[in-house]
Amino acid sequence: MKMIKNAIGREIPESSDGNKNIPFKGIGKHQPEGNKVGPPIPSGKDYKNKVVKDLDHVLEKINLFDGMVISFHHHLRDGDYLVNLILERLDKKGIKDIILAPSALFPVHEPIVDLIKKGTVSHVLGSMNGPVGRLCSTGGMNKTAILRSHGGRYRAIQDGDLKIDAAFIAAPTADVHGNANGIHGPSACGPLGFALADSLYADQVVIVTDNLVPFPTWPWSIEGGNVDYIVPIDKLGDPEKIVSGTTKVTTDPDRLKIASMAAQIVRDSGLIDEPEFSFQAGAGGMSLAFIQYVAEYMNDKKVVADFVRGGSTQVLVDMLESGLTKFILDGQSFDLAGVRSLRDNWNHIETNPFVSYNYHTKGCFAPRVKASVLGATEIDLNFNVNVNTHSTITILSNVIINGVIDKVVII
Amino acid sequence: MKMIKNAIGREIPESSDGNKNIPFKGIGKHQPEGNKVGPPIPSGKDYKNKVVKDLDHVLEKINLFDGMVISFHHHLRDGDYLVNLILERLDKKGIKDIILAPSALFPVHEPIVDLIKKGTVSHVLGSMNGPVGRLCSTGGMNKTAILRSHGGRYRAIQDGDLKIDAAFIAAPTADVHGNANGIHGPSACGPLGFALADSLYADQVVIVTDNLVPFPTWPWSIEGGNVDYIVPIDKLGDPEKIVSGTTKVTTDPDRLKIASMAAQIVRDSGLIDEPEFSFQAGAGGMSLAFIQYVAEYMNDKKVVADFVRGGSTQVLVDMLESGLTKFILDGQSFDLAGVRSLRDNWNHIETNPFVSYNYHTKGCFAPRVKASVLGATEIDLNFNVNVNTHSTITILSNVIINGVIDKVVII
Repeated sequence: MKMIKNAIGREIPESSDGNKNIPFKGIGKHQPEGNKVGPPIPSGKDYKNKVVKDLDHVLEKINLFDGMVISFHHHLRDGDYLVNLILERLDKKGIKDIILAPSALFPVHEPIVDLIKKGTVSHVLGSMNGPVGRLCSTGGMNKTAILRSHGGRYRAIQDGDLKIDAAFIAAPTADVHGNANGIHGPSACGPLGFALADSLYADQVVIVTDNLVPFPTWPWSIEGGNVDYIVPIDKLGDPEKIVSGTTKVTTDPDRLKIASMAAQIVRDSGLIDEPEFSFQAGAGGMSLAFIQYVAEYMNDKKVVADFVRGGSTQVLVDMLESGLTKFILDGQSFDLAGVRSLRDNWNHIETNPFVSYNYHTKGCFAPRVKASVLGATEIDLNFNVNVNTHSTITILSNVIINGVIDKVVII
Repeated sequence: MKMIKNAIGREIPESSDGNKNIPFKGIGKHQPEGNKVGPPIPSGKDYKNKVVKDLDHVLEKINLFDGMVISFHHHLRDGDYLVNLILERLDKKGIKDIILAPSALFPVHEPIVDLIKKGTVSHVLGSMNGPVGRLCSTGGMNKTAILRSHGGRYRAIQDGDLKIDAAFIAAPTADVHGNANGIHGPSACGPLGFALADSLYADQVVIVTDNLVPFPTWPWSIEGGNVDYIVPIDKLGDPEKIVSGTTKVTTDPDRLKIASMAAQIVRDSGLIDEPEFSFQAGAGGMSLAFIQYVAEYMNDKKVVADFVRGGSTQVLVDMLESGLTKFILDGQSFDLAGVRSLRDNWNHIETNPFVSYNYHTKGCFAPRVKASVLGATEIDLNFNVNVNTHSTITILSNVIINGVIDKVVII
């Protein structure tokens, strides 16, 4: 692959057609071809009783082989127990070269580092926060890792670029039919949308829950008709790390100033006065401050947003409950207020990457968001933005170290 | 096809393997093969503004051709205007041999009779109540018609046996992105599940609404990411015929006696005392009486159903609100109380044929229903049940005439 230098002098691959912004070809330049995946047709007769006693038993039932692709979602974040529970069992069984396709990994998944070194896990196709990201940044993957955006991951699964052999879906609540959601139970995390594509397209779909209830639970973030097995376990994760009790607005003066200026841009650009105003901001301390500043301006101007896009938090819930927005569209809840509101408020809507960000649809709603606040590690002079690696070229993680990325593609 | 006589002496086709119950091969005997349909991969860039001025303009945009398959859902029942509005326009354009694939037709669709005679419409793949059913019963179709169950229709679309070129979905409420539901607006009908398969698998998906609202409407019975065009029109249908103001419990002594005996069977068989009790009954006067009798027995025995399966009506809503059932699982609302409850009550759940009846899934919930009351026109001595044709061999409709079915297959 021929390398060129970008605007700030860092090497990036040049595309074969000479476009300098690989893999982004420019707005509207990408034209998909072909068809979505058509999964094998199942038969209802094979799914009369899907509840399996425990994880060991379900691993006896599913088709395991060297080099298989297994997937997980990251709604339990740094509180997740499931990835490690499955991988340590597969390791004991002697399965090799597993390709791990989580929507994201966190510091809690540090044991994977050893499993990669040992050859149980070959490489990762997914986001990597923490030690696994560090390993990747320092060239420790056995094959090229691929990072994808949330929408890009759904697209890759839907289009057949990422075929999953077995999906393990941590479900804070599931019924005996396999319907599952994240709003009830001791491990409640909010939405379960990151697992939707996996449930629709993976060959084998395993729901793992610490809150198995009679049919029906509701809502059906994951539909039982797409589920092979349901496994009850004692504890899916550490509730305190799944969602914060509360998320905290920054008090750092520099960060407050950035947040304030971002909110002023939204106000003074006139965006806030346009019909159908909406915005997206995250759960970081600075993003939360931005939301509070914008909410203040909206209040002054008597503006009601058509929707605000979460990650949901107390500050967004406050906006919904005080009438400053008609809806919250929520991809993941970051604190208990977000989870409670999603559970109790009809106008707090659970979303998933298909409806939110998947470009290979007849439209997703990302282009309808009027203003978006995103943390970025690099911006070049052409406004190309990097949110995946630090300027030290390590994958974005809580701990920054120097290193080289030689085995990762970010798409 | 070799014909044999069934238990009551009526001729039915014999299967090649000698099984007498064609097309039903026996429980668990059917084994599907192959893959579900993988629709073409769309590109978000082609779907920036999907709202089209009116029906004439949208018919200029979509690909029309002789012999095309077009589909509709029947949630607006005998109040539906859309089928006739589309067909009269296609007739004016000179399109021929249209294959009509509605989930069902009603007396209001009588104009189709002339369009079939004229050759604009070739034949129907779907249920036919009223004049079109009569035409079919008397041999008036130009090609063999196929009737399918709700689950069978979803299956056929999902598996590629029924490929829809253009789906026209009447939506009581839709937003400018194409998200649609049936719980708001002047033509509110309740669920929109009969149109789900069409929205997922048809080549071209057109939402037609008389209540176009800003993004987002909620819930998303139909997801905008699957929709090509949204067309506002003045009036989707006649509200009085879409749902009854109220549905009426029978007062006929014979019918009351049948209902009472059916309820006694459910009670005295012990079904009502089993854990996870549930039942399904329809909206006919006798079914409603059955529900009231069962509710009485449940009240006496302090039994709470895990769920009751609608068509929803005031009598089911009464059960939900008085705590006799935890949930209503609703496929179609038959009266205003049903629509209101679906709109306002979290425990009144909208369903669709994928989750309810589709056998080609990893399980649907039909087998979880403990007791089901269905009107049937014929039962043979082996308990094979006919719900599609009268004993006069005409397709079930409001008006019974003598005739012969020589161009219909019921599967």
